[in-house]
Amino acid sequence: MLSASTIINTSVENPSGENLGKIEELMIDLNSGRIAYAVVSFGGFLGIGDKLFALPFEALKVDTINEKIILDVDKETLENAPGFDKDNWPDVTEHAWLVDVYSYYGYPPYWT
Amino acid sequence: MLSASTIINTSVENPSGENLGKIEELMIDLNSGRIAYAVVSFGGFLGIGDKLFALPFEALKVDTINEKIILDVDKETLENAPGFDKDNWPDVTEHAWLVDVYSYYGYPPYWT
Repeated sequence: MLSASTIINTSVENPSGENLGKIEELMIDLNSGRIAYAVVSFGGFLGIGDKLFALPFEALKVDTINEKIILDVDKETLENAPGFDKDNWPDVTEHAWLVDVYSYYGYPPYWT
Repeated sequence: MLSASTIINTSVENPSGENLGKIEELMIDLNSGRIAYAVVSFGGFLGIGDKLFALPFEALKVDTINEKIILDVDKETLENAPGFDKDNWPDVTEHAWLVDVYSYYGYPPYWT
């Protein structure tokens, strides 16, 4: 277990140890008490600092010993990933949007 | 949905609107992506500022319109609730401790 405050701002790396970005936020599904999705910035890696990405929490492997998070997704997948502008977060009532996020990374939605 | 950062520091009230305290932290179960428990301080209400309390997230009803959290637990229950010192958080590997927390508030553990 880790606190939400500890996870937020943790660095995200690929399995080769290259820095991809960091966790910006955890969005909580109030009905289930689950993380609906993590919000990640890939500024350093993709060179698009103002864009944020939603990822299923399952896609993020927390390395508690080295205090980092591993994301095993190739660069092309990240470049084409569903994102949003940091000043225009998705409408959380649009469930279809979150279905697309889970589908993109190959995870079944947790609510099904 | 709400961000973890928004939930943290939100005021906790009883159903009569009396202030009980606030959310200090959300502890995340890394295996399941669920909130294992919320950490709440009841400093103002119980007069024990250095003690923190673990609560099942289900026990907390988020009022997104009024930006507060409702906890429908009577004062006697809170006074005798399982808590810990703010400088001595529970060992998260002690699953039995979390079983007791869920049991105390009458919720089945989410992992069973």
